[in-house]
Amino acid sequence: MRVVVLRLGHRPERDKRITTHVGLVSRAFGAREMLMDGRDPSVEESLADVVERWGGSFRLRSNVSWRGEAASWKEAGGKVVHLTMYGSRLSDIINDIKSHDCIMVVVGAEKVPAEIYQLADWNVAIGNQPHSEVAALAVFLDRLMEGQELVNNFEGGLEIIPSVRGKNVVGHRKDHP
Amino acid sequence: MRVVVLRLGHRPERDKRITTHVGLVSRAFGAREMLMDGRDPSVEESLADVVERWGGSFRLRSNVSWRGEAASWKEAGGKVVHLTMYGSRLSDIINDIKSHDCIMVVVGAEKVPAEIYQLADWNVAIGNQPHSEVAALAVFLDRLMEGQELVNNFEGGLEIIPSVRGKNVVGHRKDHP
Repeated sequence: MRVVVLRLGHRPERDKRITTHVGLVSRAFGAREMLMDGRDPSVEESLADVVERWGGSFRLRSNVSWRGEAASWKEAGGKVVHLTMYGSRLSDIINDIKSHDCIMVVVGAEKVPAEIYQLADWNVAIGNQPHSEVAALAVFLDRLMEGQELVNNFEGGLEIIPSVRGKNVVGHRKDHP
Repeated sequence: MRVVVLRLGHRPERDKRITTHVGLVSRAFGAREMLMDGRDPSVEESLADVVERWGGSFRLRSNVSWRGEAASWKEAGGKVVHLTMYGSRLSDIINDIKSHDCIMVVVGAEKVPAEIYQLADWNVAIGNQPHSEVAALAVFLDRLMEGQELVNNFEGGLEIIPSVRGKNVVGHRKDHP
């Protein structure tokens, strides 16, 4: 399955850490890249730093045209899921979504353009209460990938050995075969 | 099941929105209250505002002694789960945790006191990659409650009717039986 995340409406003055968390969740839960309709060097640096240390090939593309990206995605046969507290219940539509291979997940900040609701193949609510786009994305990807994302390996980075107490981190040399 | 969330190490200058999201996730995913070892009026206001509009009885208690709260919780028979990327795999221990009724979930900011690792009954990793305490809490509570938290009703607040497209919000009068 190929998953990308489209982050809309980032406001540099207040969303730096939330958008960084959206990016880190995207990477850790198996998305290949995150697209942003704006640009924030502090988000770019934080995500690049994690990829450098922890491995894998996740990337961030800033300043994209979201309409263009969503349109090309759909033209190529991909599906678009918009996460919103107003949407359909996750449990009602997750099996339908799982039957597709290429999923773009749209995650808005406080307000998104109304046309997103029309453009999306599914508007999906992770519960119908206000909470967090970081949480919504994580639970959606966890359900989509049935927990398999949590045992992903990321090539070329540090690795944590799960531990009952304390911290056990193993370093991998980047040039190791 | 009774769940409370203990938020440690909040830094007012940078964690306002992340801690607010931790609180909103706690409420939306079925925790009864969030405890904080510090205080931040802006977090208090944001959470009180959501409870006022969206209902339920979730509350925030600030300036608690975290050692005292954890100790009383355990003395009363409750269990303590510390979410950390260094911990045991979620899938390995979730069934064990589910066999208990009273769970305190500890969610740290960037660094937590080392003694938390000893005090916790379980140190649990939601994947062993860096991502977000907001995401970790949401996925943990979703797995703990097996998705039932997403259909929770909150008495006395606005209610969203899940919708394929658009927004459908119903107001409830607080004095309605």
